[in-house]
Amino acid sequence: MREITFIEKFLKANHKYVLDKFSNKELLTVASKTHATDLLTEVDLTLQKRFVEAAEESFPTDRVIGEESGLDVIPEESDGRVWMIDPIDGTYNFVRGANPAFGISVAFVQDGFAQAAGVHMPLNNLMFLAETDKGAFCNGRRLCVSTVQRFDEACMEIDFGGVKARRALVKRALDIIKKAGQVRCQGCAVMGICQVASGDVDGYLHIGLPPWDFAAAQLIAEEAGAVATRLDGRPLRLFDEKQGVLITNGAIHKTALSLLNH
Amino acid sequence: MREITFIEKFLKANHKYVLDKFSNKELLTVASKTHATDLLTEVDLTLQKRFVEAAEESFPTDRVIGEESGLDVIPEESDGRVWMIDPIDGTYNFVRGANPAFGISVAFVQDGFAQAAGVHMPLNNLMFLAETDKGAFCNGRRLCVSTVQRFDEACMEIDFGGVKARRALVKRALDIIKKAGQVRCQGCAVMGICQVASGDVDGYLHIGLPPWDFAAAQLIAEEAGAVATRLDGRPLRLFDEKQGVLITNGAIHKTALSLLNH
Repeated sequence: MREITFIEKFLKANHKYVLDKFSNKELLTVASKTHATDLLTEVDLTLQKRFVEAAEESFPTDRVIGEESGLDVIPEESDGRVWMIDPIDGTYNFVRGANPAFGISVAFVQDGFAQAAGVHMPLNNLMFLAETDKGAFCNGRRLCVSTVQRFDEACMEIDFGGVKARRALVKRALDIIKKAGQVRCQGCAVMGICQVASGDVDGYLHIGLPPWDFAAAQLIAEEAGAVATRLDGRPLRLFDEKQGVLITNGAIHKTALSLLNH
Repeated sequence: MREITFIEKFLKANHKYVLDKFSNKELLTVASKTHATDLLTEVDLTLQKRFVEAAEESFPTDRVIGEESGLDVIPEESDGRVWMIDPIDGTYNFVRGANPAFGISVAFVQDGFAQAAGVHMPLNNLMFLAETDKGAFCNGRRLCVSTVQRFDEACMEIDFGGVKARRALVKRALDIIKKAGQVRCQGCAVMGICQVASGDVDGYLHIGLPPWDFAAAQLIAEEAGAVATRLDGRPLRLFDEKQGVLITNGAIHKTALSLLNH
């Protein structure tokens, strides 16, 4: 099976399960991880488990890494075939129902670079798919980044994250926060980055995002024409052990970098 | 006709029109108002015009004020019967399709206090309704604010607004931004405030919101148990010519005020 076909099939197969769990979210088992608003649910665990089983069946020799439960180990070597899953990105939104922005993210990575990617937003049934050099699509429609040129007219999606990393974010990104035309924060990396791809926002910023949170969305955004770097302007690589993520429509990238590094 | 019945009827009657326009938003006529991201569309104008006509027919002696096109005049006296409409709150989101958070807001105000209120979110068909002393409801379900007690576990919806007022917001709200458990910004006041009512977020903050943006949502939130004040702690009144708005679940209100006023 082609990797992109496997991704799409997995995401579609779990659509109803996620919707059902969201509809009855008051019955969910929820635990905190690193802090009170860093949440883990049975849905995260079940989806990751299902993915591991599906990948073992179709691609038995491939490695799987993911956000939850012992799979969150970034490989020291970038060689070989790796699957990266974030079972629910935006778990906090999922649990609270806050304008529910959450998505399921799966990337197939070869030698350190994503080759096939899928992000699914179950509530509005948006299926973002991309393969290297083949473009990015949402429900079959080809995606293209926005043409906004001026930073004071740009809409920046800024992830404020949990309270522990907040001071560092505010310090580093204060000029971005002050000078962007609009600021949004949905608290869901995959949605923020996919909205750069679809041209609905112009840039996405996170001060410290693990690779399973952007592996799929980065490819989708780049295939739609986005520019993706670290906060110091170096290329955004999955396994470089660096932190921040800046993904924009390209036109505002230089300005955003200069505001982050003066 | 009862005022709440009139409100619900108006909102329902325009549901299809708004959905149709959103589906074809690339065809919209869009203009800028005070700055490049402060947008006005034909939908704002049409909805407001339709509301003025409907109100004139059912309540011919009542006054109507609203966000657009000459109706944005705050009465000097708070006596008498006033209707307040924000035809599309979140026009920027509507135009760009950015995780589209927008709503239509109608309040009936008597002697300076909202007595009946409706907020409609067309995309997910959420109808928030409230009357004084009768509780708040969303699609018939009674609403109640969250029970979150600690500020570092609270989700604050902060409206970063346009770039012109951003510095003042960041200065005033910096400690809120740094210390809240989670920060969200959807760029839609009525949705933010209604989510305080539904318990999906714990607080809403805006540094300068005109009264048609919160007249309906404030009543909905208060009827769900929320506390609503100005940023200095004074009661939130529609026609006091003050600016900032803080609406919370009550439990975190004192902490939020102290972070805004130290």
